[in-house]
Amino acid sequence: MNLAKVGVHLTSKMAKYTVVMIRHGESTWNKENKFCGWFDADLSELGENEARTGGKMLKEKGYTFDIAFTSMLKRAIKTLHLVQDELDLMWIPVVKHWRLNERMYGGLQGLNKSETAAKHGEEQVKIWRRSYDTPPPVVDANSSHNPANDIKYKFVDKQLIPKSECLKDTVARALPFWYDQIVPAILSGQKVLIAAHGNSLRAMVKYLDNMSEADIMALNIPTGIPLVYELDADLKPVKHYYLASDDQVKAAMDKVAAQGKAKK
Amino acid sequence: MNLAKVGVHLTSKMAKYTVVMIRHGESTWNKENKFCGWFDADLSELGENEARTGGKMLKEKGYTFDIAFTSMLKRAIKTLHLVQDELDLMWIPVVKHWRLNERMYGGLQGLNKSETAAKHGEEQVKIWRRSYDTPPPVVDANSSHNPANDIKYKFVDKQLIPKSECLKDTVARALPFWYDQIVPAILSGQKVLIAAHGNSLRAMVKYLDNMSEADIMALNIPTGIPLVYELDADLKPVKHYYLASDDQVKAAMDKVAAQGKAKK
Repeated sequence: MNLAKVGVHLTSKMAKYTVVMIRHGESTWNKENKFCGWFDADLSELGENEARTGGKMLKEKGYTFDIAFTSMLKRAIKTLHLVQDELDLMWIPVVKHWRLNERMYGGLQGLNKSETAAKHGEEQVKIWRRSYDTPPPVVDANSSHNPANDIKYKFVDKQLIPKSECLKDTVARALPFWYDQIVPAILSGQKVLIAAHGNSLRAMVKYLDNMSEADIMALNIPTGIPLVYELDADLKPVKHYYLASDDQVKAAMDKVAAQGKAKK
Repeated sequence: MNLAKVGVHLTSKMAKYTVVMIRHGESTWNKENKFCGWFDADLSELGENEARTGGKMLKEKGYTFDIAFTSMLKRAIKTLHLVQDELDLMWIPVVKHWRLNERMYGGLQGLNKSETAAKHGEEQVKIWRRSYDTPPPVVDANSSHNPANDIKYKFVDKQLIPKSECLKDTVARALPFWYDQIVPAILSGQKVLIAAHGNSLRAMVKYLDNMSEADIMALNIPTGIPLVYELDADLKPVKHYYLASDDQVKAAMDKVAAQGKAKK
């Protein structure tokens, strides 16, 4: 399934609900090409601009929201804040949850992606980043990258806190949040905005579009471009589309796909 | 009671809980010297700096928080966001509620304070701003300043939405939020931060310090300077103080008090 194809009709049913997802803009660690995962990197100036641009795209098309969901990581929370500012929706409730966090990259977190590729080989890095069910090495117990040592997660059962995740793991821990928090909001008639990360958004996209493991691994959600899902009464997608031209989406996807390749 | 006196011991009991309040920084409407109330004016650049400075004061003294409460108005929400950013606490839950909004100034909202003073007389303006139980004229039903016409309050019972408020009214509608949302958070051991407005903060200060109507009317809470309350096991204040020098607090209070006086 090619998400870059806008306006594809997936069922003949009528759209009843609309949900919008947005991936956070560039972080200071994206810039440095490091595996970030649960590290709480800030937005770069470009990332802030991407977020504001995403907000302007939504405003231009007349979107509004009743509630927003985001992760515990500031690059997503700030992206949401900037989108809210553009939409003059600073006042809507925002729910932050670790289940919407980025994939937890285990022992790779903090490593420069190009260096990792040079050390382990580009193919191994690609497997760790893109394989559906091969997690990277676990994080060291005493590492500052171990979320069990992070005050943010002090109220999370230690058994749930990941030491490393493959995409399959991320999907498994993100979906309960979709079912338990986002779906009730949608069904109660609230217009929902989700500001999250490449892999937590993939979890929801895979589920909604019933995508294969291979297809979701190949999908690179671009940063800062609102992704709209129109859902029928049974929450099945009627259509989905980005609020940008095909060329803009393609360029943004290619940029994301290029991450993790060893620099020449 | 003079809040500018720091570290006054009010009881001999031990402090068990700490609550911090902060009044939002300067808004674009403060700058224009207009009655703002529930109008959703943005922070000015100075206001953003005040908020960041308040956050830095808290960080320097080692304060941290588990939950934050604010109003539905962006000048308070953004102040909180900037304080959270300085404290690296972007991830804590934030509860936004209309009961923490500024006093609703009725028919005065949108008027330049100096013009109002020139028209109605400085004394009348002072009464409307500072009298405990004399509300200004009500807002016009069809006015854009009527919160009943504002999407922010669509889930609030119309009977509760103020058409104009004296400070007594603001106290009456703010305190249920203190009792029902803030107190349970404090008693459950959470460290609480409240980012709000001059008059919604006055409501809580009057209650906590059991202040007279005259005293609370004379109290001008400065913007952007964290106000710390240490409470005993019965939530009675043991002491309260600003995180700034007496001179800084005095200067900031005088600045706030000067608003509403007719310009020469």
